[in-house]
Amino acid sequence: MNCGISQRIYLELVPPAEEDNRSSWQRICDSLQKKGCGDVKASAFVLRKLYPLCEEAGWKLTISLCYDGRDWEAVDLEAGDTSDAHYGLAVDLGSTTVAMQLLNCNTGEVLVQESAYNQQIAFGEDILTRIFYSKDQPEQLEEIRLATVNTITGLMERIAAQTGIDTKKCLSMVVAGNTTMTHFLIGMDAFCVFSAPYAVQADQPGFLKGKELDIPIRGYVFCYPGKANYLGGDIISGMVATDLYHRESISLFFDVGTNGELVVGNRDFLLCGAGAAGPALEGGVVKTGMRAAEGAVQHIRLSHADPVLVSAECARQKEKAAYTVQLDVIGGGAPTGICGSGIIDLISELFLHRLIDLRGKFVPESSDAIAYRPEEGEYAFCYAPGLWFYQSDILEFIRTKAAAYTMMEYLLSETELGLEDVADFYMAGAFGTHVNKESAVNIGMYPDVDLERIHAEGNTSLKGAQMLLLDRQIVEELPEILDRMTYVQFGAVEDFLQKMTAASALPHTDLERYPSVKARLDHSAYE
Amino acid sequence: MNCGISQRIYLELVPPAEEDNRSSWQRICDSLQKKGCGDVKASAFVLRKLYPLCEEAGWKLTISLCYDGRDWEAVDLEAGDTSDAHYGLAVDLGSTTVAMQLLNCNTGEVLVQESAYNQQIAFGEDILTRIFYSKDQPEQLEEIRLATVNTITGLMERIAAQTGIDTKKCLSMVVAGNTTMTHFLIGMDAFCVFSAPYAVQADQPGFLKGKELDIPIRGYVFCYPGKANYLGGDIISGMVATDLYHRESISLFFDVGTNGELVVGNRDFLLCGAGAAGPALEGGVVKTGMRAAEGAVQHIRLSHADPVLVSAECARQKEKAAYTVQLDVIGGGAPTGICGSGIIDLISELFLHRLIDLRGKFVPESSDAIAYRPEEGEYAFCYAPGLWFYQSDILEFIRTKAAAYTMMEYLLSETELGLEDVADFYMAGAFGTHVNKESAVNIGMYPDVDLERIHAEGNTSLKGAQMLLLDRQIVEELPEILDRMTYVQFGAVEDFLQKMTAASALPHTDLERYPSVKARLDHSAYE
Repeated sequence: MNCGISQRIYLELVPPAEEDNRSSWQRICDSLQKKGCGDVKASAFVLRKLYPLCEEAGWKLTISLCYDGRDWEAVDLEAGDTSDAHYGLAVDLGSTTVAMQLLNCNTGEVLVQESAYNQQIAFGEDILTRIFYSKDQPEQLEEIRLATVNTITGLMERIAAQTGIDTKKCLSMVVAGNTTMTHFLIGMDAFCVFSAPYAVQADQPGFLKGKELDIPIRGYVFCYPGKANYLGGDIISGMVATDLYHRESISLFFDVGTNGELVVGNRDFLLCGAGAAGPALEGGVVKTGMRAAEGAVQHIRLSHADPVLVSAECARQKEKAAYTVQLDVIGGGAPTGICGSGIIDLISELFLHRLIDLRGKFVPESSDAIAYRPEEGEYAFCYAPGLWFYQSDILEFIRTKAAAYTMMEYLLSETELGLEDVADFYMAGAFGTHVNKESAVNIGMYPDVDLERIHAEGNTSLKGAQMLLLDRQIVEELPEILDRMTYVQFGAVEDFLQKMTAASALPHTDLERYPSVKARLDHSAYE
Repeated sequence: MNCGISQRIYLELVPPAEEDNRSSWQRICDSLQKKGCGDVKASAFVLRKLYPLCEEAGWKLTISLCYDGRDWEAVDLEAGDTSDAHYGLAVDLGSTTVAMQLLNCNTGEVLVQESAYNQQIAFGEDILTRIFYSKDQPEQLEEIRLATVNTITGLMERIAAQTGIDTKKCLSMVVAGNTTMTHFLIGMDAFCVFSAPYAVQADQPGFLKGKELDIPIRGYVFCYPGKANYLGGDIISGMVATDLYHRESISLFFDVGTNGELVVGNRDFLLCGAGAAGPALEGGVVKTGMRAAEGAVQHIRLSHADPVLVSAECARQKEKAAYTVQLDVIGGGAPTGICGSGIIDLISELFLHRLIDLRGKFVPESSDAIAYRPEEGEYAFCYAPGLWFYQSDILEFIRTKAAAYTMMEYLLSETELGLEDVADFYMAGAFGTHVNKESAVNIGMYPDVDLERIHAEGNTSLKGAQMLLLDRQIVEELPEILDRMTYVQFGAVEDFLQKMTAASALPHTDLERYPSVKARLDHSAYE
């Protein structure tokens, strides 16, 4: 195992004697030198602990060291061999959800993972509201900074209560967040992130003292660096998590959320870009959509209520077919809404069953489950008693997936590579882990490639944070990785909108790009 | 001028633009790189200041950097060119008096110097009382730590009030103090300094954050390292001040106070030692002695009241001679006591006029000014109306000067060098600056060498602190200097007491060592 960004080292020192009366601190430094730790910086906190600790412990001590980006600093000293109690924290600082892991930094084991809503939400559901709230208002910026810090310390306290491990004794913390989140954590105005020329305050803050950030750990907080305003530390962390920059084969990394961020490349090149994808994929904005919590429909299958009666003839004659809807509800109870992965299934099913056309428009005559809802002024599909999925939701979704697809297409075209050249597609985000890949291909959200090549990677931001905590080498590699990355501003791409329009169909206006979907449609029982 | 341990650098940055949207912090780092500052570490304090400062200042900024012993850390950022306002603090942390200088770190100019009693005195006049007070009593140790810090911050406030310069904006502080003082400043139990095996807590604490020490400056406090328990940072600072370790010629550095610390050597070798000299030289302990403050007799001359009447015959016949006493009183008013330099003059005069013998014993029959004081049970000399200098004071002084002389003699004998091989004698301490060198030679406190070779250097501890503040190179040299030093424990020297007994005469039992004094005695009008 590589050395992480913290160390706990057990020392058995020779006690002072007339013929060897080096100072206690020198004794420790000499011993650490022999262990290859180089020159270690002192801190007043540790110097104050030397006495009577050294004597009482019979000169058998455990010293804690934190890497500050260049050197090791001594941040704690304890009696006896407590080197096993070596803990660190990895944090994915999302604008909605903050996830934290407590790690045993000796074994790499994740002891516990917790998450909480980001308390910044009190100042705006969406990130832009928060940015405007704090723009040029130092006191309000401080409110947002404290909300961020409190979210983190709240999680630390919960984890401490759960595990009985004093998280304040953690040595280091690695935080991966987008550029705005990192700005807010440090207490920097983030308006720059969203306004031309998109020159932010700091995208590589590096190691900052926990104390300076009001985060009660022993040592330093490392914030993952960003590449550009819209390509922040969470994405760099994700790249680290997938390790794509080390491999010879080409990978595509895609973090789809309200914004989409992608990287394509390998150990020789890295091209990246980011753009607004729209919030549709996050479930929260569609009319009956919700987050992936209890009561959310996460998977859905339509089937003819009585398959015997159904024939291609019937469909052609526009006779209305009856469907049974199979729902997979989180928690197993009655459904209360539908989350992202459910939406993808639903749109895929509606499309394959021709309840919607390739532009996503309802075909009202195809099913009784489709009804005009006067209070909303639009058609909707009833996927469960009292729960409707609306026309506008579908169109919103198609815009989102078209944006996502176009980003991928554009980035690949910049590399003069085709989909076939990409060995692996990494789909990041908690969202991706529950998506039925075939459904996502059906609706043209994922490219039509062998499903084995598509990997739902989950929270890569958190994983990258965890990895860096355990491997200092990554810190050294980051500047080179960032240097190698070429950032493409999608907004600046002339034909982006044109390409996006072409992608605004199910699965795409150019069906040749989706041979498997074409085949499924061709062989569909309803054709 | 060399680069100090802080820098203020004026930067004119290119404002962000579409084609160059590096972050503000990156812009600063790149600019500093070009100026040869290497990679500069960020601090949250500076990152928070970037906005709106950079824009408001039109990207013309002054950044403050502090050296932390390895790297430069950005500790402040200001609009426009304020690089002239580059201040630092040098501190001599004495157990009795704390002296502080505010420096213009660009020009090296000392803007003001202030001193104050060390507030630790509240916990004991002498250092041992303070050590016992705080020994194994963390709360009392904290009291002493705060007293130390308050003395320093009090001086900072006084200097700020005097100069109008906000001393809190000082970048760095260099503190030179003995090992106990450094322990107390950091908050470390100092009993170790005075108890076998004399292995202290930390003698090379290096750079510690001002904040960690509760000292409100922007950056770091550097504590001069010590060589041994009794040879602390004040002496290393003194060596730096005299630069003896760079020269080819051999020097002897001597800081005489309650303890005597000496170093003899040159660029090739350094031998050092320390021992208790006794408090006599500091004025405070002799019966009518006092510190060098208003009312203190600082110089004294005796002459026969009527020289015509005086003859060698008269002296031989033990006729009492009358003397006029010429006093130089600090402040010019009536004398209230006598300080160190006055005592040296007085003993020298008493000796040359044979009012005391070579053992320091009064010759009562030699003068009416010598009288037996029944209330004290001893003889005394009346040097001013109502002010007496006592027999016991003289004997105490002789013990002290014998200890000092013996240390010097011993250290030189270890080098197999004679006095003639030493090009320069540096006498450190505020005390030395007022001493009449000839008087000091007469009584055997200084060796009998050409007076031009004896330099009263004043507060070398403060001077060395000042120099390091202005020259980072010294920081790099210190480990090598400490390595080169060989420490001699005088206490361990078998014949030390024997040598000291030999030196317990005026000027020495071996008068051949003092040819100039011998000549003065031989040619004395009173012989």
